[in-house]
Amino acid sequence: MTTAAFIGLGNMGYPMAGHLARAGFDVTVYNRSEDKARRWVEEYGGRQARTPALAARGAEFVFVCVGNDNDLHQVTVEDNGAVHGLSAESVLVDHTTASAAMAETLDAACREKGGRFMDAPVSGGQQGAENGQLSIMCGADEVTFERLAPVLDHYGKSVVHMGPVGQGQLTKMANQICVASVIEGVAEALSFARDAGLDAEKAMQVIGAGAGGSWQLVNRHRTMLADDYDHGFAVDWMRKDLDICLAEATRQGTSLPATALINEFYKEVQAMGGGRWDTSSLLRRLRRDKG
Amino acid sequence: MTTAAFIGLGNMGYPMAGHLARAGFDVTVYNRSEDKARRWVEEYGGRQARTPALAARGAEFVFVCVGNDNDLHQVTVEDNGAVHGLSAESVLVDHTTASAAMAETLDAACREKGGRFMDAPVSGGQQGAENGQLSIMCGADEVTFERLAPVLDHYGKSVVHMGPVGQGQLTKMANQICVASVIEGVAEALSFARDAGLDAEKAMQVIGAGAGGSWQLVNRHRTMLADDYDHGFAVDWMRKDLDICLAEATRQGTSLPATALINEFYKEVQAMGGGRWDTSSLLRRLRRDKG
Amino acid sequence: MTTAAFIGLGNMGYPMAGHLARAGFDVTVYNRSEDKARRWVEEYGGRQARTPALAARGAEFVFVCVGNDNDLHQVTVEDNGAVHGLSAESVLVDHTTASAAMAETLDAACREKGGRFMDAPVSGGQQGAENGQLSIMCGADEVTFERLAPVLDHYGKSVVHMGPVGQGQLTKMANQICVASVIEGVAEALSFARDAGLDAEKAMQVIGAGAGGSWQLVNRHRTMLADDYDHGFAVDWMRKDLDICLAEATRQGTSLPATALINEFYKEVQAMGGGRWDTSSLLRRLRRDKG
Amino acid sequence: MTTAAFIGLGNMGYPMAGHLARAGFDVTVYNRSEDKARRWVEEYGGRQARTPALAARGAEFVFVCVGNDNDLHQVTVEDNGAVHGLSAESVLVDHTTASAAMAETLDAACREKGGRFMDAPVSGGQQGAENGQLSIMCGADEVTFERLAPVLDHYGKSVVHMGPVGQGQLTKMANQICVASVIEGVAEALSFARDAGLDAEKAMQVIGAGAGGSWQLVNRHRTMLADDYDHGFAVDWMRKDLDICLAEATRQGTSLPATALINEFYKEVQAMGGGRWDTSSLLRRLRRDKG
Ligand SMILES: NC(=O)C1=CN([C@@H]2O[C@H](COP(=O)(O)OP(=O)(O)OC[C@H]3O[C@@H](n4cnc5c(N)ncnc54)[C@H](OP(=O)(O)O)[C@@H]3O)[C@@H](O)[C@H]2O)C=CC1
Ligand SMILES: NC(=O)C1=CN([C@@H]2O[C@H](COP(=O)(O)OP(=O)(O)OC[C@H]3O[C@@H](n4cnc5c(N)ncnc54)[C@H](OP(=O)(O)O)[C@@H]3O)[C@@H](O)[C@H]2O)C=CC1
Ligand SMILES: NC(=O)C1=CN([C@@H]2O[C@H](COP(=O)(O)OP(=O)(O)OC[C@H]3O[C@@H](n4cnc5c(N)ncnc54)[C@H](OP(=O)(O)O)[C@@H]3O)[C@@H](O)[C@H]2O)C=CC1
Repeated sequence: MTTAAFIGLGNMGYPMAGHLARAGFDVTVYNRSEDKARRWVEEYGGRQARTPALAARGAEFVFVCVGNDNDLHQVTVEDNGAVHGLSAESVLVDHTTASAAMAETLDAACREKGGRFMDAPVSGGQQGAENGQLSIMCGADEVTFERLAPVLDHYGKSVVHMGPVGQGQLTKMANQICVASVIEGVAEALSFARDAGLDAEKAMQVIGAGAGGSWQLVNRHRTMLADDYDHGFAVDWMRKDLDICLAEATRQGTSLPATALINEFYKEVQAMGGGRWDTSSLLRRLRRDKG
Repeated sequence: MTTAAFIGLGNMGYPMAGHLARAGFDVTVYNRSEDKARRWVEEYGGRQARTPALAARGAEFVFVCVGNDNDLHQVTVEDNGAVHGLSAESVLVDHTTASAAMAETLDAACREKGGRFMDAPVSGGQQGAENGQLSIMCGADEVTFERLAPVLDHYGKSVVHMGPVGQGQLTKMANQICVASVIEGVAEALSFARDAGLDAEKAMQVIGAGAGGSWQLVNRHRTMLADDYDHGFAVDWMRKDLDICLAEATRQGTSLPATALINEFYKEVQAMGGGRWDTSSLLRRLRRDKG
Repeated sequence: MTTAAFIGLGNMGYPMAGHLARAGFDVTVYNRSEDKARRWVEEYGGRQARTPALAARGAEFVFVCVGNDNDLHQVTVEDNGAVHGLSAESVLVDHTTASAAMAETLDAACREKGGRFMDAPVSGGQQGAENGQLSIMCGADEVTFERLAPVLDHYGKSVVHMGPVGQGQLTKMANQICVASVIEGVAEALSFARDAGLDAEKAMQVIGAGAGGSWQLVNRHRTMLADDYDHGFAVDWMRKDLDICLAEATRQGTSLPATALINEFYKEVQAMGGGRWDTSSLLRRLRRDKG
Repeated sequence: MTTAAFIGLGNMGYPMAGHLARAGFDVTVYNRSEDKARRWVEEYGGRQARTPALAARGAEFVFVCVGNDNDLHQVTVEDNGAVHGLSAESVLVDHTTASAAMAETLDAACREKGGRFMDAPVSGGQQGAENGQLSIMCGADEVTFERLAPVLDHYGKSVVHMGPVGQGQLTKMANQICVASVIEGVAEALSFARDAGLDAEKAMQVIGAGAGGSWQLVNRHRTMLADDYDHGFAVDWMRKDLDICLAEATRQGTSLPATALINEFYKEVQAMGGGRWDTSSLLRRLRRDKG
């Protein structure tokens, strides 16, 4: 029985760890708020550890899925962090959407212990995590990736090796850049359609079938038209991701004018109280003084 | 044999008129530069008229596909324009991407002659016109639309009745709003991927399969990465379309911040000499001082 | 006694016409809503005419100050417009902020009558009009300008010949481009100062004295901090002016990214009900979900 | 004789330290590249120290003026940093434009030694430093400010107490927000004026005297028109400052759309090779494919 640790049982981590348990892994979990870990163990069996380090001890694969760089730092390299429980030959896999710099830091920390690291941010949302249909973007050396790929297949529908450590995160950032502009475009089109007196639903059908089409348009226009944002990927997460993108772009000297602008619009959504709304709520910003 | 006139044999109009001829319509064509009309008649038969009015005379259906509002005004309501050749019971169908105000003007002019009008801008590009696979967004009364729908099926894969006159154009504008933001987003993502040292092609494969995916990403990233813009939908056309969008948005009081910004970036592409480049050349703007 | 006609007795035109009367001109006024004209005659003497054409008849100098291109068209070249009352040797001076294309149209119309035209948009606001302290940007041939300069001195503190017809308007547009960005910058700085817990008033004192200083910062930060926009230059006017700027920029192929973006923000202010608020109300947009 | 240390003899620090020496302070300097320190001692007397800590030892006032947060960290709290040379009753004054968080860190470090800290970023440029005409924005407790104010008067024309530690930096950021938008506005106006065929110099005279006027317009339009950017405040510094602004705004949840956009434009200027050009070079970006 392969041993695994899973640290961070939030919306994403909880079901991901569950898939491993169901696939027969011997899983030890850690979560900051203990009740979630307790609930998980009740549901899937396995064990609950008191610290990330204890969870990691003896595990071949150590998975992490927490909020941001800071959280990640705490549960890995700081006191009682998972890195301190790593053994040679174990691999730390990070599913958090975090910075590429953080990936490099963790890679160095793991190697110091004789272990390996892989950054493996995901896309596909909570639903993808639950259905085991995530898209996983991996940054690691070839050997580490080959070792992990069959494991990740338990919750990934597409597990791709992007390149060395960090490139998983960089791919995720490129993804978020695409998402931000697409949503703003769909939101502007819907706002325009509304003011112009169009049947917006029908217009989206037509547009979605052609060169203006996108995943967001097809999958989000209906909830956007219903002014329903109580689902999906939260604005607070998007803001974090775009801050990471823009910091990385600054490091590289890449100009991202639309992304930078839309990031500021997301701040306005946060000020509207929309930190937990789905990212498609950019439409609500555009419509707030309209109907 | 149903009689039709086709005015404007450009990249789009030429093959569209051809589909009608092949479907057995008796087509009279008019084109400002006569050689194109001559060439068309050689290829498809039918007749060439010396003015739009003469082409329209006696035709049940009169199609127009020219450049912009101005061009449209000239070939319809000005001297020798198609409207002057209309009879009661004939319908003028406009495939030009033009303003909704222009559609209303033409509707009034047609009704004065006892005829009918339909705005029917298309999307799908030159290739769609050639393959008869256009998406056609129609603005007309119910009866007129029903009369035209089977005719448009000769070159449309999707012919949709959006609502009364003008709503075809308004739908097309909503489409262009989506397109502009999507392309800028893909361009920024690609520029980021390049600077970050990613395998950009592989990154686009992954992103294209998920929530960041779009028609433009899937169909254009390869040519964008090859810095090849010698194809597709020209920046000059996009500029015209976005100017129409923004003027309409101003009329309605709709705020389109990303669209307005990207319109200014397209001006920069025009200044780079890119008026005829494909709209995906926003990437070239981002990369001009890079590699 | 020099004869003059003044058409359009709004916030600007009323006091401007008054300065001419006080300087001894024999002034005939026209205003669409007759009561304003009546009131003016009661205050300053002179005569009230029933149409712009009648006001212009026999006047050496015909001044116009109405809202926009459309209004201007109506009171000049359309039926009963001022141009129809022009004689050879009379000059039409337009103080409306309008397009350069409109200036050219009016110039042609005046020359047809043997008369002359000068575009002379102003800056300095209602207060400047009342105090006779306007800055006036003139587009005309040398001779016409020399003839008018001493007349305009009655309400101008700075009367400058910018070049041929149209260049007055183009200068005014360049001015509005500066104004829009300056105000957005001051608004962002104030919003930042507020959130950062600074003494915003003190910060503006310091900034205003250095390289971040501007007329808007010095003259508007206090009312902005007091959330008071019931004065000054209305957002509706600014929107009109920026639309003119952007249309002209499109004609010239000039990219104005910040201006285009801020124009969209002003649309949001209009949607907030702020059409009549002072242009500095961009701050209210930034603060609407804050305190 | 009052003892002072000055760390960082760059374009700003060199002349500032000079003013202190001329005013009779006993100054010990430190500069990373020793030749500058040597040159300074030759010019002004005083002593050169081998490390920041040694320079600080025994000094009542310790001034720092280096590049950014990182540099500041190195010369203060890291090994051999100035903080290690502080005694109770000495004050560390930081003239670097840095983050407010950094100011808080340094304040804590100084207090641990029994000393005091003041953040005191400046504006006025190299010329202001040379002429002793800087504007200095101070963050400190009342007593510390009162102690330092007469000292700073040796090179400041305006020395203002903004509030507690950090508020000097926050004021400087608000200043940079103003500057960025003003310059983009002036650049867009000049680009517009050029394309519209205006006498741009004359237009700026007129605009500069009214509601569109600003320090940047008055003091920079001539060099901008001459395409001369070999002077002034470098784009690289501006980029650093705007990154600080935007990070702080993110911390506070403040939306700065124009600032964020212009920051991206400055990245484009850097990519053009303009890292050392004056910030007014935003015009060169707008004109790069024009004349
Ligand atoms: N939700 C989504 O649709 C998607 C999310 N992501 C990314 O996945 C990551 C996780 O998202 P999600 O699961 O939705 O987030 P949740 O907020 O649901 O869960 C966050 C988890 O991290 C833990 N955590 C946070 N901070 C700390 C800390 N300082 N110390 C210890 N544990 C901590 C939380 O513990 P506790 O329970 O105690 O709060 C919780 O287990 C994020 O990086 C997100 O951007 C990626 C794709 C889609
Ligand atoms: N206000 C300001 O601070 C500044 C304004 N300007 C510009 O000056 C111009 C005038 O501004 P302002 O005086 O404030 O505007 P007001 O709205 O106060 O006045 C507009 C005037 O135009 C007349 N008018 C409008 N439309 C028509 C029409 N179709 N036919 C006949 N008359 C018409 C109005 O008549 P009626 O009384 O019947 O409505 C009124 O006399 C504008 O172009 C504005 O942009 C320039 C600088 C500063
Ligand atoms: N220049 C201007 O017009 C203005 C500048 N400022 C701000 O003032 C500060 C200084 O600017 P300026 O003097 O022009 O910059 P310079 O580049 O001319 O000088 C920088 C100084 O910092 C030193 N330095 C940089 N990094 C380190 C390090 N890691 N360790 C030790 N010393 C270091 C340099 O040493 P070395 O000589 O060895 O390189 C040099 O003395 C910046 O924060 C800037 O933003 C503010 C207003 C105007």
